[in-house]
Amino acid sequence: MRGAVIHAPGDVRFETLDDPKILNPTDAVIRTAVTCVCGSDLWPWRGLDATDEAHPMGHEYVGFVEEVGSEVTAVRPGQFVVGSFATSDNTCANCRNGFQSNCLNREFMSTCQAEYVRIPNAQGTLVATDDVPGEEFWPGLLAVSDVMGTGWYAADAAEVKPGSTAVVVGDGAVGLCAVIAAKERGAERIIAMSRHESRQKLAREFGATDIVTERGEDGIARIKEMTGGIGADSVLECVGTEQSMQQALRSTRPGGNVGFVGVPHEVAVDGQELFFSHVGLRGGPAPVRRYLPDLIDRVLSGRIDPGKVFDLTLPLEQVAEGYKAMDERRAVKALLKP
Amino acid sequence: MRGAVIHAPGDVRFETLDDPKILNPTDAVIRTAVTCVCGSDLWPWRGLDATDEAHPMGHEYVGFVEEVGSEVTAVRPGQFVVGSFATSDNTCANCRNGFQSNCLNREFMSTCQAEYVRIPNAQGTLVATDDVPGEEFWPGLLAVSDVMGTGWYAADAAEVKPGSTAVVVGDGAVGLCAVIAAKERGAERIIAMSRHESRQKLAREFGATDIVTERGEDGIARIKEMTGGIGADSVLECVGTEQSMQQALRSTRPGGNVGFVGVPHEVAVDGQELFFSHVGLRGGPAPVRRYLPDLIDRVLSGRIDPGKVFDLTLPLEQVAEGYKAMDERRAVKALLKP
Repeated sequence: MRGAVIHAPGDVRFETLDDPKILNPTDAVIRTAVTCVCGSDLWPWRGLDATDEAHPMGHEYVGFVEEVGSEVTAVRPGQFVVGSFATSDNTCANCRNGFQSNCLNREFMSTCQAEYVRIPNAQGTLVATDDVPGEEFWPGLLAVSDVMGTGWYAADAAEVKPGSTAVVVGDGAVGLCAVIAAKERGAERIIAMSRHESRQKLAREFGATDIVTERGEDGIARIKEMTGGIGADSVLECVGTEQSMQQALRSTRPGGNVGFVGVPHEVAVDGQELFFSHVGLRGGPAPVRRYLPDLIDRVLSGRIDPGKVFDLTLPLEQVAEGYKAMDERRAVKALLKP
Repeated sequence: MRGAVIHAPGDVRFETLDDPKILNPTDAVIRTAVTCVCGSDLWPWRGLDATDEAHPMGHEYVGFVEEVGSEVTAVRPGQFVVGSFATSDNTCANCRNGFQSNCLNREFMSTCQAEYVRIPNAQGTLVATDDVPGEEFWPGLLAVSDVMGTGWYAADAAEVKPGSTAVVVGDGAVGLCAVIAAKERGAERIIAMSRHESRQKLAREFGATDIVTERGEDGIARIKEMTGGIGADSVLECVGTEQSMQQALRSTRPGGNVGFVGVPHEVAVDGQELFFSHVGLRGGPAPVRRYLPDLIDRVLSGRIDPGKVFDLTLPLEQVAEGYKAMDERRAVKALLKP
């Protein structure tokens, strides 16, 4: 089969690779329906994460079960399945507590920009749809497996409640999905922080009631001004930089909550500032598995369409162009079709 | 009247001071029934917080209303009242959200080791008991105004739930009250971290089911060992140092919560570690006012007796000895009687 391999910053190639096989009785192998490029894939592409040796890429996938190991009974060949970037047995203590992305047997996916993919912990990771969904739903279900699940967790961790005010920091695919999540969870006012016209438009389409273009101190002041001087009930941090975390913490009202889902790069939170702010803080890789059945329903019922975050569709063999388009911000997120 | 004044590290004097007066229509003046020395009072005593000029001390009090300003209708002269170290109007947006210790009109108390005290925001701060309680209840009610209210907030912020496992880091008066709070909120297993025999004894009396004497990495390993390898549901951080915060964060299970009520001194939380831990974190000065009616009931009904944290009683004029005894760890907490 063929799949994407990164050799060095800016050098992703579509190459012939060994076909994935069942290695453990808990594995499944799927034939990829659609996959995509993630914002986090740009870290090695840009050389900000080191690439010591060539390796496959990609952690987002939906597809058709090809083969299952002897211990996998939850899905069977031919079924259409949705998974997650973090695999989980869905039985350990952390999984039972709803944090499947911290499963004691977790393996992160990393070979999904390919025609076939081996899925460890398939029994606890994959959720099959009742029927094979029409192709028009595939982008939405692919989003559910990562960016939509992550946006949902941001809203969950930030404890977005009906009637509340939510701020979304970050207008990438996750931030845009976080707007959907805030809306679905009943936020009355959803303030998206964005400077890009096309993303503002999609944020509004997804449920944002207000757009704030200011950043840093000005952005914080603007949010305070819009929230009776105290800050928002919930802030969804979807970037992962020091600046975005400050923006999030200082835009939250005393007693409010920040859910942070951007992987923090060189972020330190000052204990005393956090203390006097009374802000609650929770982050992490999203426990997508917890949300899958619900989010799959919302997509298949047409209630939400997070697939709209894909504004570029390419054949899988042009995967490198997907990275390039996202790096140059010509695309929010690139869908790849094998 | 007379009261405590700090002049320099180690130099607290009992002096004649101006009688407090109503300055604003929202003030009350109370005659102190009992007051005490707080662990945080030891910071200037030890010279760790600077004392640039001599000033009164103390922020814990219960007493009898002497006089009220024209806008104070909730309490009247002669009533026995319980307050909080942070005054609040109990009407602003932050108060309505339950974070009265972040009241937009907040003033921190700082003159309470004295015979009479002016209470700003008296209407929203003071809660009167139905009758004047017997003297045996005064220590418990005094605890409620600060250390018990703070321990309760630690349990609240750490989301202690019935049947859960809670760890308390810190065996000072707040930590000991946090054990009471964890028990009252239904924790099934309460692990107190303490190396002092007399404090261990009180912790057990208050409801601790286990004592852990190890600290640092060993303490974390011990907690993990006791919690199926994953950590506790809730950890109540009642110290405020870098080490205690690490202890707390690393003893919490993925998806669990840390409530931190020790004022952080030079504490920085690593964003990436917090992210991958999935731990929720909330701290701050306790919104004691939110809990007052409930905690007063628990004390007066005899359900809890947080007054036991006072293991030294002194006449107010010997206030300096109270500081000294606590500094030398001869006392957990010193009660002062005018």
